[in-house]
Amino acid sequence: MGVRTRMTESEREALLIRLEEKVDDFLEWLSAFSAEGAGVTRLLYSPQWLEAQQALHAKLAGMGLDASFDEVGNVFGRLAGRKPELAPIVTGSHVDTVVSGGRYDGAYGIAAACIALEYLRDTYGSPIRTLEAVSLSEEEGSRFPMAYWGSGSIAGERSFEGVRGLADSDGVTFEEAMRSCGFGAGSGKAARREDIGAFVELHIEQGSVLESEGLSVGVVDAVVGQRRFLVRLGGEANHAGTTPMRMRRDALEGAGAMMSLLRGEALRRGAQLVATVGRLLASPNVPNVVAGEASFTVDVRHSDPLELERFCGWFPAAFRDAAESRGLTFECEEWFREEPAPMDDKLKERLDKVCEELGIGSKRMVSGAGHDAQMFQRLCPSALLFVPSKGGLSHAPEEFTSSRELATGVLVLTELLYRLGYEEEEETLP
Amino acid sequence: MGVRTRMTESEREALLIRLEEKVDDFLEWLSAFSAEGAGVTRLLYSPQWLEAQQALHAKLAGMGLDASFDEVGNVFGRLAGRKPELAPIVTGSHVDTVVSGGRYDGAYGIAAACIALEYLRDTYGSPIRTLEAVSLSEEEGSRFPMAYWGSGSIAGERSFEGVRGLADSDGVTFEEAMRSCGFGAGSGKAARREDIGAFVELHIEQGSVLESEGLSVGVVDAVVGQRRFLVRLGGEANHAGTTPMRMRRDALEGAGAMMSLLRGEALRRGAQLVATVGRLLASPNVPNVVAGEASFTVDVRHSDPLELERFCGWFPAAFRDAAESRGLTFECEEWFREEPAPMDDKLKERLDKVCEELGIGSKRMVSGAGHDAQMFQRLCPSALLFVPSKGGLSHAPEEFTSSRELATGVLVLTELLYRLGYEEEEETLP
Repeated sequence: MGVRTRMTESEREALLIRLEEKVDDFLEWLSAFSAEGAGVTRLLYSPQWLEAQQALHAKLAGMGLDASFDEVGNVFGRLAGRKPELAPIVTGSHVDTVVSGGRYDGAYGIAAACIALEYLRDTYGSPIRTLEAVSLSEEEGSRFPMAYWGSGSIAGERSFEGVRGLADSDGVTFEEAMRSCGFGAGSGKAARREDIGAFVELHIEQGSVLESEGLSVGVVDAVVGQRRFLVRLGGEANHAGTTPMRMRRDALEGAGAMMSLLRGEALRRGAQLVATVGRLLASPNVPNVVAGEASFTVDVRHSDPLELERFCGWFPAAFRDAAESRGLTFECEEWFREEPAPMDDKLKERLDKVCEELGIGSKRMVSGAGHDAQMFQRLCPSALLFVPSKGGLSHAPEEFTSSRELATGVLVLTELLYRLGYEEEEETLP
Repeated sequence: MGVRTRMTESEREALLIRLEEKVDDFLEWLSAFSAEGAGVTRLLYSPQWLEAQQALHAKLAGMGLDASFDEVGNVFGRLAGRKPELAPIVTGSHVDTVVSGGRYDGAYGIAAACIALEYLRDTYGSPIRTLEAVSLSEEEGSRFPMAYWGSGSIAGERSFEGVRGLADSDGVTFEEAMRSCGFGAGSGKAARREDIGAFVELHIEQGSVLESEGLSVGVVDAVVGQRRFLVRLGGEANHAGTTPMRMRRDALEGAGAMMSLLRGEALRRGAQLVATVGRLLASPNVPNVVAGEASFTVDVRHSDPLELERFCGWFPAAFRDAAESRGLTFECEEWFREEPAPMDDKLKERLDKVCEELGIGSKRMVSGAGHDAQMFQRLCPSALLFVPSKGGLSHAPEEFTSSRELATGVLVLTELLYRLGYEEEEETLP
């Protein structure tokens, strides 16, 4: 079989049907490694997690790849290139899940990596440049108060020192949990890598942009930067009957006005910016008392650091004005910050081209959620590809992407890896 | 001593100093009948309540008045008039308190009634028309889910049938509690009265209108009508990062917009209308998820039934539009309704005149809170008088009105009772 862009329509259809079966079987198989309860639960260093990583190790070895663990429990399957001096291309995603998650988040990227490498090796033999599939140990932060353990350890953004003292909700320490699975400092090859030429991650969108626009693939421009704030308003708790409107200092009404301001300005600033008040508490929060206090969170995300900075400069000033005009005290505290993580321009252009040549509907978009690719982009040129999520649902058993959509994503990944691994011999990537 | 409007300034000052002492002593004495804890707690049919009513009975008898209980525990002190065919004037307020209330709410009206009757009897002897002081058994609804038990029983708005099955938070039934204090059907004279000529209640404002305008007395035009609603908004819980602003159905933001709408329109409609969102709950109420559900209460009050009706017709329609433009489902359910209770025009005019002639700063105002006078106004011409509340605070241990303000209110009440009881012989009142 030649390059997929030169396939006839019926050849392409046959390939997609084959990829559908492969990816369906893989996800079905991997989803069985789960704690009891609804959906899939595979927490870092849990028995189900360990079984899954061991089974993936065996599967990669069974495919004839050079399978290995590193010291944090990442599993690699290496398809050695004919020119070992060329930096390898790594592809994959995370094996852990949230509690009662779906079967696609993370798992799909691992499945796609395995299926793509197997197909390429079976079809074309050894690549010029080494290709690696990876099942990353952790991304969700669902067991311990820390996320991106797998990719962060590879990129040097996480360390054994950094997790010292962390414990899960049962009081089990990170160290204990890691050691119980046979991992930890000195347990195997170092997690930190400096030899990687590029990283490509395929993931479900976890939003509904692709679905609503009827597109198959999203080429991620950047993982958005995030800032989270806690706003506290202080007014005066008063009798709802005896306090005239003009004499009120109503903290809850002030919060309401701020939510409206936030939405209006976020809409005005354009499609990329998202700003959310997700949590609000009022006090005393009873029907017949004007609220004396209100506090709420503000979550702001944008892929452009400058736009993010601008909005996060604008809203506290606007809120302060709204508070002052109502006689409310105002505090705003930032409690979380993550800078935008741009994906590699050249990899994005290649992906655009692959989609265009294959006739696959795609668009550039931002990722509003965090992904392993944002850790890798600090280390090497990185790309992140999305396929649609039905209804935008994720982190729930109802998470769903159709077999055809999954297969289409695998096809794009396969074609990209072919071009990077088999067609070219550039010394530097991409 | 002659009529207080003909007093010299120094005579008036001497009287006010005497009334200050009287009212301070009375409130100090009555506040001692309290359960343990902060402030004053005197719940209906509790041991402290019973001691207080028995002590008030003894005090009224000690003043030479004809003291009596009725079957629900209201205490009366009767100063018989020389013309028994004239309908008596009743004055007083409620003896019960909220949990950890202040020493003025209710108690002040009882103190004022006793002090006024004692002063009038001592100064002028028997009146032409019978005057009665009353310590009403219950108004707050703090122990059982029912309020205005004392005044409502007198006015025929409450009945033993109506409280059947009610229990307090400890499971004690209304009937048991009432019987334990020796009250209940057949225990004494009937609560229902049809002979009352007029009712006058002196009360603290529980708001800060008088304080902020530097006035001593509020002549209440009407106790506002109240309606309370529960609004439920249904949107879609979504990822705060992956859901573009235009694709959101954010129930919390919708609630915020509605609070702003409510405030804007309430301000526009003028000083009497108050509309409050006091309680709001969002779901899932976490920082990084767009809220899928929100519910909040709306409390609307106005003294004019037509204005109240208009506003309560307007806001659900406006909210529905705001919900629809955001793709939110909307429900609005009324769960509480009380019609406005107008005070008697002629009594109000007399009170205006008394204040004017005494040179006491007063204004007409509405009562945003409920009072016993609203039960009596269904039975007989009724009046409600306010004195300032420091900072508008009430239902709290910090409730405060200065001795001079308290004495000024007693002076106005005394003068009104003099004019109604001693100066005139009208067959009908007022």
